Amino acid sequence: MKISDATLKRLPQYLRILKSKQKENVANVSSTTIANELNLNSIQVRKDLALVSKNDGKPGIGFDVTELITDLEIFLDLNNTKNAIIVGTGRLGQALMNYNGFENNISIVLGFDNDKTKCDNKKIFHIEEIKKVISKRNIHIGIITVPKEFAQEVCNLLVEIGITAIWNFAPINLQVPKNIAIKNEDLSASLSILIKQMNKK
Amino acid sequence: MKISDATLKRLPQYLRILKSKQKENVANVSSTTIANELNLNSIQVRKDLALVSKNDGKPGIGFDVTELITDLEIFLDLNNTKNAIIVGTGRLGQALMNYNGFENNISIVLGFDNDKTKCDNKKIFHIEEIKKVISKRNIHIGIITVPKEFAQEVCNLLVEIGITAIWNFAPINLQVPKNIAIKNEDLSASLSILIKQMNKK
Repeated sequence: MKISDATLKRLPQYLRILKSKQKENVANVSSTTIANELNLNSIQVRKDLALVSKNDGKPGIGFDVTELITDLEIFLDLNNTKNAIIVGTGRLGQALMNYNGFENNISIVLGFDNDKTKCDNKKIFHIEEIKKVISKRNIHIGIITVPKEFAQEVCNLLVEIGITAIWNFAPINLQVPKNIAIKNEDLSASLSILIKQMNKK
Repeated sequence: MKISDATLKRLPQYLRILKSKQKENVANVSSTTIANELNLNSIQVRKDLALVSKNDGKPGIGFDVTELITDLEIFLDLNNTKNAIIVGTGRLGQALMNYNGFENNISIVLGFDNDKTKCDNKKIFHIEEIKKVISKRNIHIGIITVPKEFAQEVCNLLVEIGITAIWNFAPINLQVPKNIAIKNEDLSASLSILIKQMNKK
């Protein structure tokens, strides 16, 4: 099944709204309600949800909240928490290790740094130990939060030790082999979008 | 001029590559070279660049690096540094205050927090002082890095004191008046894209 990145980005937002409705004991929710909370078009919402769920909102009643949550969680593979490690435990790395917005998507189990003073041998290890430490664990995702001049080197190391998905926060586009999944998180690009939007208003 | 968010996201990446070429004293660069470094199609690169620059790469020679940098900087309004404040000076807030990937796009001049122990009265103030502190300065952008349960309240406060662009890192979609620019930075949505990509490989 083909699904666009744009749709994929909206799905966790739908899930977030549905979960808050569930907390409020709301049993059904309409596409219009979801659309309004996200400033989207309700046709768009229905199209997106049709891709991941057979739960088609009934006219006048809406979607079954609990069913739709389950369908979204299955589609997004959320019940299958991925183990992640983070390389670079500066402020951004630590922020991500403590971030509470990932739901059950990933568990950042360990951090690595080249600064010995940051290593506590419980959750943060020296980068030289990465091969040894990783080999005993089932790690899916490597998060890179080192300064940009070291990012490609760290990325190569992660690929070498068998990590298959890289989430990069260093402001540089990393090169990886074709069999490796990569997402470059470009904060300055996001900022450009905000500034363009601001200048238009 | 209409320009898509997808194009807008690529422009800072082009700029980054051009600047690294400039550092290496490279005078001209082809769309193919840029495309290869970003895993893009060279036709896409040429289309994007045609939107922001009259500098059309000459066959066999390529784009003039210095000219293209200037054109991109003007288009992205980079020579006009925006002042930003950040509300929430926990790990993520501090990480952003010290992030070195924004080039000259923004300057995060001040931080605010409701925890008095974090306030140094030089760069970090108590949130209660925000109105007074802001009124003396020309602030364009408010960055929100508070826990999600406080994010909407902080957002309303920023709008009230005259901030016109909000960059939100709390995992919640904030509601703002139509004249306010907003970009919700949804890390869990990014992560979903990476995981889907990983599962496909």
